[in-house]
Amino acid sequence: MTLPIYVIRLSQRGYRDLRVTTHCCLVARAFGTQKIILDENQPREIQQTVQKITNTFGGTFDVEYTQSPAREIKRLKKEGNTIVHLTMYGESPRKKMNELRKKKKGMVIVVGAHKVPAEIYHLADYNISITRQPHSEIAALGVFLHQLTQGKEETLEFEGARRKIIPQKKGKKVISSPN
Amino acid sequence: MTLPIYVIRLSQRGYRDLRVTTHCCLVARAFGTQKIILDENQPREIQQTVQKITNTFGGTFDVEYTQSPAREIKRLKKEGNTIVHLTMYGESPRKKMNELRKKKKGMVIVVGAHKVPAEIYHLADYNISITRQPHSEIAALGVFLHQLTQGKEETLEFEGARRKIIPQKKGKKVISSPN
Repeated sequence: MTLPIYVIRLSQRGYRDLRVTTHCCLVARAFGTQKIILDENQPREIQQTVQKITNTFGGTFDVEYTQSPAREIKRLKKEGNTIVHLTMYGESPRKKMNELRKKKKGMVIVVGAHKVPAEIYHLADYNISITRQPHSEIAALGVFLHQLTQGKEETLEFEGARRKIIPQKKGKKVISSPN
Repeated sequence: MTLPIYVIRLSQRGYRDLRVTTHCCLVARAFGTQKIILDENQPREIQQTVQKITNTFGGTFDVEYTQSPAREIKRLKKEGNTIVHLTMYGESPRKKMNELRKKKKGMVIVVGAHKVPAEIYHLADYNISITRQPHSEIAALGVFLHQLTQGKEETLEFEGARRKIIPQKKGKKVISSPN
């Protein structure tokens, strides 16, 4: 099960942001979105890393690249998607969450990087701040999706998983299947 | 206002984990914990980076280093703190949250790295999984703290802040004071 939600990760710093961008991808997947779109300057190995995890742990999740995230946001907005930009300068999520959950069409969540162009703030239908403090786009994405879906990440099923984790008090239990 | 919560970040990979560890620190701070303890192999510049942010955005938050995170966990456990280890192999947070919120003493949240020694799973009073999928210790920490504090991060006040962000629909509004 995936949600009609895309994530766009703004970052042009290539290998410097490799790990942080990879974490963004994995959070987007684990919390049930369909796809993340990266700046073309981001290494292609991110796509491979995430693809491997999807092959093992199931579900469908795509990592795509774009020459222009801003153009991509405009295109998706025109298609009727709601654009939510996560920024520490934005509004309280609590106040907007009910409104956001009622959206009939898809949602595009934009997570920033070091410097986000002013254009993005204006393209966004919502600028939302998780905490009003500087921290991490990775945590912001997770906490936002947790709130938006009301904790749905706990019960998501990822179809075709070759490895399934069975919750344990202590230690690890994984069911592996060869298919 | 800070919570009687410490975070311990397990990571021995030095500069390789610099950004991810820095994000862990900033999430620990932004979501209201008191302190993060890092493995001594982590670069000292992380402490400086986080200190600068605390100086600017207020509150009290410490970054400390330890030669042995496991020994530190044992010491804090002996003092009566509840040890919560965030791992994708653990139990559902939803089922444990009420129990955790009732703890009278402090809490120590342990976030992992690439390989977490089996000892940690056994030292932990709770092994908790955010999503049962591989993603990010940064997001796991944020989502766990959000749930534990029931969204308190939205209303935390950081005393002595020289910069305060005022939530905006579009753009940025920051109040700076010279003190």
